[in-house]
Amino acid sequence: MREVYQEQLDKLADELASMSTMVGTAMEHATQALLEADLSLAEQVIDEDMQVDEARSRCEEHAFGLLALQAPVAGDLRTVISTIHAAEDLERMGDLALHVAKTARRRHPQPVLPDDVKSYFSRMGQVAVKLSNRVNHVMRTQDVQEARGLEDDDDEMDDLHRHLFSVVMGSEWEHGVSVAVDITLLGRFYERFADHAVSVARRVVYIVTGSMPSNN
Amino acid sequence: MREVYQEQLDKLADELASMSTMVGTAMEHATQALLEADLSLAEQVIDEDMQVDEARSRCEEHAFGLLALQAPVAGDLRTVISTIHAAEDLERMGDLALHVAKTARRRHPQPVLPDDVKSYFSRMGQVAVKLSNRVNHVMRTQDVQEARGLEDDDDEMDDLHRHLFSVVMGSEWEHGVSVAVDITLLGRFYERFADHAVSVARRVVYIVTGSMPSNN
Repeated sequence: MREVYQEQLDKLADELASMSTMVGTAMEHATQALLEADLSLAEQVIDEDMQVDEARSRCEEHAFGLLALQAPVAGDLRTVISTIHAAEDLERMGDLALHVAKTARRRHPQPVLPDDVKSYFSRMGQVAVKLSNRVNHVMRTQDVQEARGLEDDDDEMDDLHRHLFSVVMGSEWEHGVSVAVDITLLGRFYERFADHAVSVARRVVYIVTGSMPSNN
Repeated sequence: MREVYQEQLDKLADELASMSTMVGTAMEHATQALLEADLSLAEQVIDEDMQVDEARSRCEEHAFGLLALQAPVAGDLRTVISTIHAAEDLERMGDLALHVAKTARRRHPQPVLPDDVKSYFSRMGQVAVKLSNRVNHVMRTQDVQEARGLEDDDDEMDDLHRHLFSVVMGSEWEHGVSVAVDITLLGRFYERFADHAVSVARRVVYIVTGSMPSNN
């Protein structure tokens, strides 16, 4: 029984790891679509979001199956519920990549980003991909130290987000209100993406150590 | 056994209903703090958010207890997991009210809102409270029709949100970029609050009918 449980749980962890790859790729492509006003890439991200949703449903089904058949208690029960939460976070990360891609599509053929903020989004995209890769690695290795390392990437994302705001709200901003509104929302999408990645990593720490790391 | 299960499930539904009251009140007060630049009310909302987080932890603990002791399967299992998701949505609604209150506090003693957008936020606040009340009622009565009614309120919120954007991005906007940025984020907080309320209601439909309503 125990062996079957562990096997099913490993399978669940693999599914979550594969979801993290999907959402990392989605954010990478969405960022590229945004930076280069690439309509077909934006549409690809939009089309592929359904696959993330389906992967999440499958994860949840498998978690339900595990709960129903194995009726885990105590730590095992919490582990399985954590995988359900992690799948929800990962689906939300996919939604945020989708929002970025939709913004790129909505403004096409106009670029969304003026040149003086492109570097922020380029870097926020890189940090988002790095976070997704780290989530993937944490999920596969259950390496608690690496999970904690995600907080540093999240700090970098928060810094970028704050600086971006100071540029948009600064006296030298010359691109008007409507560009500022797009950039405000886009900045928020990247920041939330990072928050959800950290949340997934915290759940993995929980799964491995049995206790939830405190905030900061 | 069945009777104990039903009793514990009813208790969980009560806890969720009470959370919906808490987050509705939080958004009502946050909106008032925003409209009237009321610092002490903003701080009250900020202080009280911890209670929402605690209520969510309690809900989750009770759901775990129910899963561990009753080991429900099939529909019952899905019902209990749905309560865990609903508690997460409700906590997030509390966070969004918190963000509104923090914006009011950050700009104090300056008002965040110029007069020409106050009516939007006043109405968005009312719709948010209405949604929370409906969630509460749905949770207590398990009335599937009422749950579906939340979608109408959510449509109204989306309309308000769209109109608000057209005001901010319109040619007559005269309050500059930095006010526009605040209003963009605030608008998003209300819109997300409504989305989560709808998500809670959909979970209640699921709990009652055993199948998830499709999107739209």
